Amino acid sequence: MATLDKIVALCKRRGFVYQSAEIYGGLNGVYDFGPLGTLLKQNIRASWIKSMMNMADNIVMLEGALLGPYEVWKASGHIDNFNDPMVDCTNCKHRYRTDEIDLQKPCPHCGIIAWTEPRQFNMMFKTQLGAASDQASTAYLRPETAQAIYINFKNVLSTTRVKIPFGIAQIGKAFRNEITPKQFLFRMREFEQMEMEWFCKPEESNDWFERWAQARKEFYQAIGITPERIRLRSHAPDELAHYSQACIDVEYDFPFGWKELEGIAHRGNFDLSQHTKHSGKDLGVYDEETKESYIPHVVECSVGVDRLFLTTLFDAYTEDTVEDEERVVLKLSPVLAPVKAAFMPLTKKLSDQAHAIYSTIRARGIMVQFDESGSIGKRYRRQDEIGTPFCFTYDFDSETTGTVTVRHRDTTFQERINIDHINTFLTEKLSL
Amino acid sequence: MATLDKIVALCKRRGFVYQSAEIYGGLNGVYDFGPLGTLLKQNIRASWIKSMMNMADNIVMLEGALLGPYEVWKASGHIDNFNDPMVDCTNCKHRYRTDEIDLQKPCPHCGIIAWTEPRQFNMMFKTQLGAASDQASTAYLRPETAQAIYINFKNVLSTTRVKIPFGIAQIGKAFRNEITPKQFLFRMREFEQMEMEWFCKPEESNDWFERWAQARKEFYQAIGITPERIRLRSHAPDELAHYSQACIDVEYDFPFGWKELEGIAHRGNFDLSQHTKHSGKDLGVYDEETKESYIPHVVECSVGVDRLFLTTLFDAYTEDTVEDEERVVLKLSPVLAPVKAAFMPLTKKLSDQAHAIYSTIRARGIMVQFDESGSIGKRYRRQDEIGTPFCFTYDFDSETTGTVTVRHRDTTFQERINIDHINTFLTEKLSL
Repeated sequence: MATLDKIVALCKRRGFVYQSAEIYGGLNGVYDFGPLGTLLKQNIRASWIKSMMNMADNIVMLEGALLGPYEVWKASGHIDNFNDPMVDCTNCKHRYRTDEIDLQKPCPHCGIIAWTEPRQFNMMFKTQLGAASDQASTAYLRPETAQAIYINFKNVLSTTRVKIPFGIAQIGKAFRNEITPKQFLFRMREFEQMEMEWFCKPEESNDWFERWAQARKEFYQAIGITPERIRLRSHAPDELAHYSQACIDVEYDFPFGWKELEGIAHRGNFDLSQHTKHSGKDLGVYDEETKESYIPHVVECSVGVDRLFLTTLFDAYTEDTVEDEERVVLKLSPVLAPVKAAFMPLTKKLSDQAHAIYSTIRARGIMVQFDESGSIGKRYRRQDEIGTPFCFTYDFDSETTGTVTVRHRDTTFQERINIDHINTFLTEKLSL
Repeated sequence: MATLDKIVALCKRRGFVYQSAEIYGGLNGVYDFGPLGTLLKQNIRASWIKSMMNMADNIVMLEGALLGPYEVWKASGHIDNFNDPMVDCTNCKHRYRTDEIDLQKPCPHCGIIAWTEPRQFNMMFKTQLGAASDQASTAYLRPETAQAIYINFKNVLSTTRVKIPFGIAQIGKAFRNEITPKQFLFRMREFEQMEMEWFCKPEESNDWFERWAQARKEFYQAIGITPERIRLRSHAPDELAHYSQACIDVEYDFPFGWKELEGIAHRGNFDLSQHTKHSGKDLGVYDEETKESYIPHVVECSVGVDRLFLTTLFDAYTEDTVEDEERVVLKLSPVLAPVKAAFMPLTKKLSDQAHAIYSTIRARGIMVQFDESGSIGKRYRRQDEIGTPFCFTYDFDSETTGTVTVRHRDTTFQERINIDHINTFLTEKLSL
């Protein structure tokens, strides 16, 4: 059974995730991704892009800056609305979110009851940009990637050949000064989003909203997430964010409950209208059929790379018993697995031959490892734990038969395969 | 002849780069990357990773956080040394870098001579992290990606099977509060680095330093940069940064002079020693042969994604005359080109057939466009300007012959190719 503690320990032990600045005591809610974590993230991003490209051939990509000026966040509503209500303990100065504590009770930190009135605490990080002592302007680290898409909507429309309906997709960092970062990668202060904003005619927006919700649910099955652990849940009217007409969450059954993995939001024309109003630039489009201008509606699909990373680990983590030995195995989809295959000589004597096959496959750009240290069983366990789907072993029959064994991670089933077929075998198994 | 103005205009016109927050007047020194720019960036990153993987099979990747605590930047020397000397005009409050102006002359802005004494201005962006009013801690946006590698050096060593010599590579954003961002993507406040830190024995470090400098120069030729516009230049002793024992720049012949594209720095054991001292954690390694501990030396290869992006555009930008018509053509290497091929019907009647071929190629994950609007000549010009290396045209002979024409961007040479061979043709042309 995957628990948060086991996942955290595995991530540290095998180089998926490290606490950021760990040698200096760490930075709360901020993480670094190690060698395997970086590969898993790259695969998650590539799968998402692929799924977007498969869904429609008029989704283009964008990479907006992480720093943004006050005006953008004023228009988006973040300056006014992106707040958590907070209280301070006037005795010990600790600060809490009001929904986390009971104000009738004493401060959990110092034991005194001495609360301030609840106040709004804005969750955006601020910094000062520029040189002149009196001109330094406040900039914000973006709390979401979506706004970069809205403010460039007209740029994209006028510099590419896309026509409504179309999508703009973006992968990039975002930042929120969470009061209580928690559950490891689930709620972080620095995180990464994959967002796609779909611009369409108002009268078609409800259809697109439903269609995208279904498509996004299917994405998780395509990358191997257990179907029973994924569900769609529509927001009740009183749950909706200020910009949202309707919202459907893709939820995953985490050990700490069903939680949002991705949000599909019907944002109406809220964002483009706001930026039209605040910038003075008309972000409407002209409809050739009706001969009228209108502001497109937007359906947003938004998922966190880190949260999906955590989800794939929870979903893949398995403890079972193989040949009377307990093992931990990450049953990741081959598409996501950081290492696609390991090449092993049965004994050191066969090292050169095994290495030659490894080099050939590696040169084709497939992420593979050469693994010759320790017993073969130990090597299988090591590869199981990082989710390597296939282990190819060069043994004493290999030279005469031109074959190696391929061991399948989940079943531990082994079969012989012609050495010349390894590349084709992997190419087939690794396509989404 | 490529000038900065022409490149900036092309980038805007064709959706490579937009001024960030342009509809709100823009953010100085900060840019957004449009659809084609995002593709070009992705290809630059992929080429760099590929070149690293080809150079050595023990280079692992890492993705460190962008936010870092004071302690890291104190140890690295950035708190104390990452400064520009500045003066303010006490009359109009304008601020200047002392190396940009002549203090004997009046302020270029207000015409008065009223300078403050020169002062040090730290170029890191600061922000406040955390919740408690008295405990909010200052964090910095990293001014370089390298430190994330040093502070995780021991983590990587203990959670993977790499052994010295080995490398840790990272791609990610960094931030510098440049007083005078300039030359478009050349000097930005928010930018992206590709850095590889190579850890080796002290006695082997000079050899590695020379070897990496050569390898990095070759990389630029591999991605199609004109060899005559690339040179290596060793730093004079008085040019060296505080952490550097020796440094070689890969320089490019920009319209504004030979400038650094990549720095290869022999950093000795400066960084690991500093972090050992400041963190109290021993970052030395034990040598099984000599039975002694030592702090590895580091050779760093560091290049800006954005600066390389700009370089590829300068290098590829060409104006020539084809069939008595002037054209702009981006002679980008097929590996870097944002769009690999365009598929065109000669007339609208042939649209379905051309689209079917386009769809087949696109489904294989190759970034291609379908282009049927305007005359065929106009379509060729459009694809030339964004650097598309191949245009496949389905014409009236296609159905009977099973062939299409393929037009080569740089020469405009056309030949017929069997439709079944297009995939193989592209796969060959697009490999690094």
